[in-house]
Amino acid sequence: MSTPEAVVSTGTDLLADAVAGQAVPVTRVDWRPPMEDTADDLATVATDPLRRDANARALAAMLGVTATLVDVAPASEVLGLARGEFLHAGPPITWDRASGPLRGALMGGAALEGLVDAPEQASALFEAGTSVSLEPCHHRSAVGPMAGVVTPSMWMLVLEDPATGRRTYCSLNEGLGKVLRYGAYAPDVLDRLRWLGNVLGPLLRAAVRSVRDAGTPVDATAILTQMLQMGDEAHNRNRAGTLMLLRDLSPALVTGAADAGFSSADVAAALRFVGGNDHFFLNLAMPACKLALDAARDIEGSTMVVAMARNGTDFGIQVAGTGDEWFTGPAQVADGLFLGDYGPDDANPDIGDSAITETAGIGGFAMATAPAIVRLVGGSVPDALATTRRMREITIGENPRWTVPVLEFAGVPSGVDVTRVCRTGILPQINTGMAGRVAGVGQVGAGLVTPPAEIFPKALAGLAARTRARG
Amino acid sequence: MSTPEAVVSTGTDLLADAVAGQAVPVTRVDWRPPMEDTADDLATVATDPLRRDANARALAAMLGVTATLVDVAPASEVLGLARGEFLHAGPPITWDRASGPLRGALMGGAALEGLVDAPEQASALFEAGTSVSLEPCHHRSAVGPMAGVVTPSMWMLVLEDPATGRRTYCSLNEGLGKVLRYGAYAPDVLDRLRWLGNVLGPLLRAAVRSVRDAGTPVDATAILTQMLQMGDEAHNRNRAGTLMLLRDLSPALVTGAADAGFSSADVAAALRFVGGNDHFFLNLAMPACKLALDAARDIEGSTMVVAMARNGTDFGIQVAGTGDEWFTGPAQVADGLFLGDYGPDDANPDIGDSAITETAGIGGFAMATAPAIVRLVGGSVPDALATTRRMREITIGENPRWTVPVLEFAGVPSGVDVTRVCRTGILPQINTGMAGRVAGVGQVGAGLVTPPAEIFPKALAGLAARTRARG
Repeated sequence: MSTPEAVVSTGTDLLADAVAGQAVPVTRVDWRPPMEDTADDLATVATDPLRRDANARALAAMLGVTATLVDVAPASEVLGLARGEFLHAGPPITWDRASGPLRGALMGGAALEGLVDAPEQASALFEAGTSVSLEPCHHRSAVGPMAGVVTPSMWMLVLEDPATGRRTYCSLNEGLGKVLRYGAYAPDVLDRLRWLGNVLGPLLRAAVRSVRDAGTPVDATAILTQMLQMGDEAHNRNRAGTLMLLRDLSPALVTGAADAGFSSADVAAALRFVGGNDHFFLNLAMPACKLALDAARDIEGSTMVVAMARNGTDFGIQVAGTGDEWFTGPAQVADGLFLGDYGPDDANPDIGDSAITETAGIGGFAMATAPAIVRLVGGSVPDALATTRRMREITIGENPRWTVPVLEFAGVPSGVDVTRVCRTGILPQINTGMAGRVAGVGQVGAGLVTPPAEIFPKALAGLAARTRARG
Repeated sequence: MSTPEAVVSTGTDLLADAVAGQAVPVTRVDWRPPMEDTADDLATVATDPLRRDANARALAAMLGVTATLVDVAPASEVLGLARGEFLHAGPPITWDRASGPLRGALMGGAALEGLVDAPEQASALFEAGTSVSLEPCHHRSAVGPMAGVVTPSMWMLVLEDPATGRRTYCSLNEGLGKVLRYGAYAPDVLDRLRWLGNVLGPLLRAAVRSVRDAGTPVDATAILTQMLQMGDEAHNRNRAGTLMLLRDLSPALVTGAADAGFSSADVAAALRFVGGNDHFFLNLAMPACKLALDAARDIEGSTMVVAMARNGTDFGIQVAGTGDEWFTGPAQVADGLFLGDYGPDDANPDIGDSAITETAGIGGFAMATAPAIVRLVGGSVPDALATTRRMREITIGENPRWTVPVLEFAGVPSGVDVTRVCRTGILPQINTGMAGRVAGVGQVGAGLVTPPAEIFPKALAGLAARTRARG
């Protein structure tokens, strides 16, 4: 036929990759050099008698969890967050090292809580640090997209594993553009946050409790299963997920509004806000992923990553076999597409707890199921298919519940293995929004990014030390 | 790498096809024999000086149309349908030749209109034929899924081309299983139809008119564009489309209910019904496709198919260059998957106007964008990708608005060309629900089917006769 050779050969590579991605075991024949100076630690951890079973248990624990939406309530109530306490995305950080978008979000949060009259006045408060404190969301069973700032008055989505009663938490998604999580703090940003707390939060609480008490709670895990058949990868595409959430809650929103003291105009505004924000479900996808990954924590000998998170300055990971220790390195700037006149110089380094989606096998790991994502984050459709296949080389297994139709229903690559990353040099692929590096700016684009390579040898060293200590 | 050769070679064919499908012109080098006894007519039509321009104009006319939802109203009102008048799917047919599901739907419709007390009593009515009449939906600017029976009291979705004011019509989707359009007429089937007319129809009318009058009517064409990025092919997967329709109408449903005389419980029931029926949007997709294809009718010299429709006995097509003439042959039984204990012997031949979606380039023609469809209609994911590519061999061009991300955003194959079908012997691929062959049974499965081959040489002969008549 008349197809140019070049096209066919590209195609062949692409599909050979895609097919290999689900037709053969994850271990590959084509050899890559391990990361520098990891030989001894790789040898130690690879021969750890606990490792194989520990990783199997970690993966099974993660895959065994389902997440249902059981409540919506203020952080002061469900997290016991007190006045002056601020949660943020990523590993621990202090104000003096905080990036522009994190500082902007903290300043906006301080104004929202009435600690200052205007966000601009909050810098002194955080410099002094006497009346305020910063703590990672992850340390409170929570996750936060981008800056991930949570204050006591913010309403949180509460997800629960019905089998264990364990819970995780995430704030309500504000939408795109000039929003707090991207470091914006203009008056309209704070007004929107107040509406989320005064109207949307209470309306959602009534609806969520109503369907929960009727024995039909919103099943975030099941919605994620469907999303992956509907062009969402659940990090930067959550359109189908958001619509399914609306489908599941809108009848109860309508019937419960009056008793909750709200008008039909309020209900319509809530439906319009959620329906107009394709990312709303991200704030359910993230805690659903954390709920699953937290089940794999503290398994001695497991080399599986249980958290990847960024605070805009540092990128940190936690591993099942090394407790709550963070292994960190400098966050990278994403490569991608920019809004309006913004360019690479305007972008802050990688920020947010949203990489919990990739840690659980979706987001950047599942781009093959959401090829339209390349129009947002850049790259090509063949890249998207090849990325999902490449991630199989650094993961422990696949998720039978979350499958990719175009890869003939192969499960998403699940359970990032520190040893496989060090042995292959392949880094986890994350897709992400980009915040402006200057406080107050907001979103400037979206793109593709990886963790700093050095954090995996650091984690490997931590695992090796424990293996040796066990003798 | 360790991929089995067999897998790679399958993959290579598959993707070479998929890539060729959008990287090279539609004409192919690999030769197939034309259909029998078509040589003379092919020669005549191929050398028709009007043909090239006529087909270009027909395709452009179809692609130029957008469809907005402007009203919802009873068929008696918008179609002037009178007591005793029944519309049905497919080409014209009489009661004596009608299949089980069409008879069942007509009997249920007669009971719904109060022409008889019970559906079983209606046979005599239709045998006599004195007080009732049958007419194709297509003859009244309407389309009907499956049996496609429309009676005066049924509420119709009204779609309009804003550029011309032309309108098309379709009834409200009842859901799956035991429903009238599949030939079921049990009391619960009629009760549901009464609720559609008494509650859902009026509620939708209020909401549709409200967003229309606000200058933001539901844009069915734009929703179709998004659906194709979300795993729907808009014939047997309409899940994302249905959710987007709910998103666009739910705020107005909530605010308009009271004035329309309905309670919040009615609104919740409407939201639950539409949200629980993944096929609801099919009844917008079909009239949107008809609206586009009707713009290509009556173009002398055009060999483009403007309608494919089945009444359960005959499969008929209409062509742009041959006016309102139907070219018909026996409808085939689909090959697919069955519900419960049903099997091939329980299935009625192909029925419904829903093949208007394939005529417009979606449905079976766009299965590459909805690989999950194979779990419903059978076949494999590679089949689904290959089908979209194969349809490019019998279509005039592609639709720049409706694209397939996994095929690197190639447009869907659009404008079935009678001459290409006759020259290649490749038949249009339709995916479809299967009705039980016995009146009253309802749906028995879903599968893949093609038109009877002989109708294309018949249409070609009709085109050739007109070409010769022009001298």
